[in-house]
Amino acid sequence: MGHLKAKDVIRDIPDFPKPGIIFKDITPVLQDPEAFSEAVQLLTQRVADWKPTCVAGIESRGFIFGAPIALQLGLPFAVVRKLGKLPAETIREEYALEYGTNTVEMHSDAVQAGDRVVVVDDLLATGGTALASARLIERLRAEVAGFAFLVELTFLPGRHALRGYPVASLIEY
Amino acid sequence: MGHLKAKDVIRDIPDFPKPGIIFKDITPVLQDPEAFSEAVQLLTQRVADWKPTCVAGIESRGFIFGAPIALQLGLPFAVVRKLGKLPAETIREEYALEYGTNTVEMHSDAVQAGDRVVVVDDLLATGGTALASARLIERLRAEVAGFAFLVELTFLPGRHALRGYPVASLIEY
Repeated sequence: MGHLKAKDVIRDIPDFPKPGIIFKDITPVLQDPEAFSEAVQLLTQRVADWKPTCVAGIESRGFIFGAPIALQLGLPFAVVRKLGKLPAETIREEYALEYGTNTVEMHSDAVQAGDRVVVVDDLLATGGTALASARLIERLRAEVAGFAFLVELTFLPGRHALRGYPVASLIEY
Repeated sequence: MGHLKAKDVIRDIPDFPKPGIIFKDITPVLQDPEAFSEAVQLLTQRVADWKPTCVAGIESRGFIFGAPIALQLGLPFAVVRKLGKLPAETIREEYALEYGTNTVEMHSDAVQAGDRVVVVDDLLATGGTALASARLIERLRAEVAGFAFLVELTFLPGRHALRGYPVASLIEY
């Protein structure tokens, strides 16, 4: 793939969310209409190859990329949210963090049995949230068609955590 | 305005987030590609009339509508987030809830001085978050061109809280 405008504007924020971590801040991509549009177009093309029937976005930056991709492809958009945000009947998956655990939730009717679901987020790090999202989708008897990320941190084991699934990312660090 | 597909699918969830509250669940709109696309198109048209130079989305359902609107208009997308989520230099606004307070945050460079910013969220209730977002935008020396919501709860004083600003909503309850 050629040079992406998004890569020119993503910025490093040292010591966020805690000392020693360098955070990749993607908000400048959103503020640059050409970079944002280019990234969404390219992700949409990658995702379309997997013949999905549904797009899922992971709260909350995954919504920013997932919703436009779903709209472009004319597909339903499902949301994966943090615990306690969804009002109707849900299923939950807990997963391990470096310290403690986190839980993600989907509405039980967010995807349909037999759906081929693409999971979208802004950034692939350890893959914990993405993998928990896949488990939710599979418990609803749908299939994960693949994962799409704007950014992948290749020094972390995210792609390994998602082995067996197609994974697309536009920018690698 | 004619009949919206979104209105047919929004559902009432009783006693969420607490007993006595009837929550308007908009996730079925996202799951219906025609309803979602129609809503985004209509919001985009309403917003375009205000000649904005930037679109801001309020975390997190505001991202689902705000990002596609920004992309359609070819405008920068700014995010208004809950406290502690944004990595770079921020400004904050605290506002009163029924019990206690809440705080929203924007990056100090999320909008530019002189910008005409449209603020997008899924639902207008009391208007507290929307008004706090306006204050953030104005502290950054930009102007609020208007507010756009999918749903407006007209039995709550949201529109009154936002008096003086243009307000568009597609569906009223």
